[in-house]
Amino acid sequence: MVVTDGTHFSKATQFDLRTYLATRQEQVEAALDRSLPVVYPEQIYEAMRYSLLAGGKRLRPILCLATCELAGGTISMALPTACALEMIHTMSLIHDDLPAMDNDDYRRGKLTNHKVFNEAVAILAGDGLLAFAFEHIAVETKDVAPDRLVKVIARLGRAVGAAGLVGGQVVDLHCEGVCDVKKETLDFIHAHKTAALLEASVVSGAILAGASEADLQRLTRYSQAIGLAFQIVDDVLDITSTQEELGKSVGKDLRAQKVTYPSFWGIDESKRQAQQLVEQAKSEVTVFGDRALPLMAIADFITARTN
Amino acid sequence: MVVTDGTHFSKATQFDLRTYLATRQEQVEAALDRSLPVVYPEQIYEAMRYSLLAGGKRLRPILCLATCELAGGTISMALPTACALEMIHTMSLIHDDLPAMDNDDYRRGKLTNHKVFNEAVAILAGDGLLAFAFEHIAVETKDVAPDRLVKVIARLGRAVGAAGLVGGQVVDLHCEGVCDVKKETLDFIHAHKTAALLEASVVSGAILAGASEADLQRLTRYSQAIGLAFQIVDDVLDITSTQEELGKSVGKDLRAQKVTYPSFWGIDESKRQAQQLVEQAKSEVTVFGDRALPLMAIADFITARTN
Repeated sequence: MVVTDGTHFSKATQFDLRTYLATRQEQVEAALDRSLPVVYPEQIYEAMRYSLLAGGKRLRPILCLATCELAGGTISMALPTACALEMIHTMSLIHDDLPAMDNDDYRRGKLTNHKVFNEAVAILAGDGLLAFAFEHIAVETKDVAPDRLVKVIARLGRAVGAAGLVGGQVVDLHCEGVCDVKKETLDFIHAHKTAALLEASVVSGAILAGASEADLQRLTRYSQAIGLAFQIVDDVLDITSTQEELGKSVGKDLRAQKVTYPSFWGIDESKRQAQQLVEQAKSEVTVFGDRALPLMAIADFITARTN
Repeated sequence: MVVTDGTHFSKATQFDLRTYLATRQEQVEAALDRSLPVVYPEQIYEAMRYSLLAGGKRLRPILCLATCELAGGTISMALPTACALEMIHTMSLIHDDLPAMDNDDYRRGKLTNHKVFNEAVAILAGDGLLAFAFEHIAVETKDVAPDRLVKVIARLGRAVGAAGLVGGQVVDLHCEGVCDVKKETLDFIHAHKTAALLEASVVSGAILAGASEADLQRLTRYSQAIGLAFQIVDDVLDITSTQEELGKSVGKDLRAQKVTYPSFWGIDESKRQAQQLVEQAKSEVTVFGDRALPLMAIADFITARTN
């Protein structure tokens, strides 16, 4: 998530997002690295670390840290939960890449976990990361009342289970190659595969800081709007980056005959919808004043990507 | 776990284990059934329920309920955690049976999860059960202080991750077909694949009821002793049941060239070691008086199985 052009941001969010993200990313990387030392049996820890430390935007941990600070908490209160969110996200990537699922050999230019290790180890590395995520929150979180931790664990469990990630992935697998997927089904997939964990990321930071129910609801609406905008922009980029790079292979959604938002709305209307969702997200958090600048800048950044 | 002969039990544990287990089993089955209703997308819930409700001894939930009562708590305080333990155990069975792991088509006479559904759904059903286990404890436990819940979640996370089940399974997979496995490696596999979750089952019930650190340590030693005894007896039965049923196929450990306790100690010494572990387990809990009768009877039952 490198911000290449500051001019995309509105005046209301004049805020050095690039520095903000770089600082937070560094904190998250260091915490992830510390969280999981290699002990016997080394291979499973190496497999878990291989995917956990493979880079990425760290958007989920950063959102969690941002809302914890917004609601009056500290970075250190939220860091174990932020790491747990990335462990859960990594687990879902490792398992989604397996031959029985999407059968991907590469992710972000690196071999997938089961290609470096093997399928058995990749399945177990995912299981290990998922279990460790909950252990890590429970053991490492300091200076947070335990009732808040229990709420955070409930939210994360729900976001990754059949009512979240797992449910979204099952429906997604069913829809592959199917042409007449309904808009409601597409909404279900994205609400569960993408938005559920983003929502848990945004809300969990605020829960840790003891935010009020009204603030949690505001942040939930913010997260739902940016979650959907993020997915729409992803779908658009899959097409437009293809058009710009004529002669290269077509987008992977088209190849997989995946139903996407642009396939329902077209590209221009999709961009308009994404922009509208970002404005909506920002309006939800204006009430927090300057403390919401990181969340506003992150929301703006989502449509900046369409350009 | 049907007790066929009450005479195996020592006088100290004259206790109607058969009725006790049947009652608890029924409570656990009903709670598991209620815990996971089928909603959209139905297939993933059906896959999770298929394995979760496929029977079995329910030893882990029953141990959790027993230690909660022993330490002054109630069945209802421990029931969500008891169910979570069975969800975690079921997840490990579903994933262990996958083609990339042990590649088993049947478990307890029923087709394995991936044979009924498919590999992708079986992987996701395991993930869903693991995530749901933590959510279920966090959401459904009533009348327990949240700091105790956080401790229980930490213990369960550790028991299933790379420091527990997952670590044991990785080493077990590495040892398959290897002849010169060391005794320490065998101990590691069983301490992690079997004993870790049994220990978490025994200890979590007592944590929920607010047991003292000294009592938790006693129960930990009890669980470690019965965990190892249980594994030794399993290994012995794999051989002796073969000898008794001549003409039938030999035991699966022998077929898989697995190193077992009888292969180190022989059958008689293995039985002696198991018996000694059971006595040791019982001596740890005598201090609790009559409240320890269920734990004593369960320990005795383990060696009764060798006959």
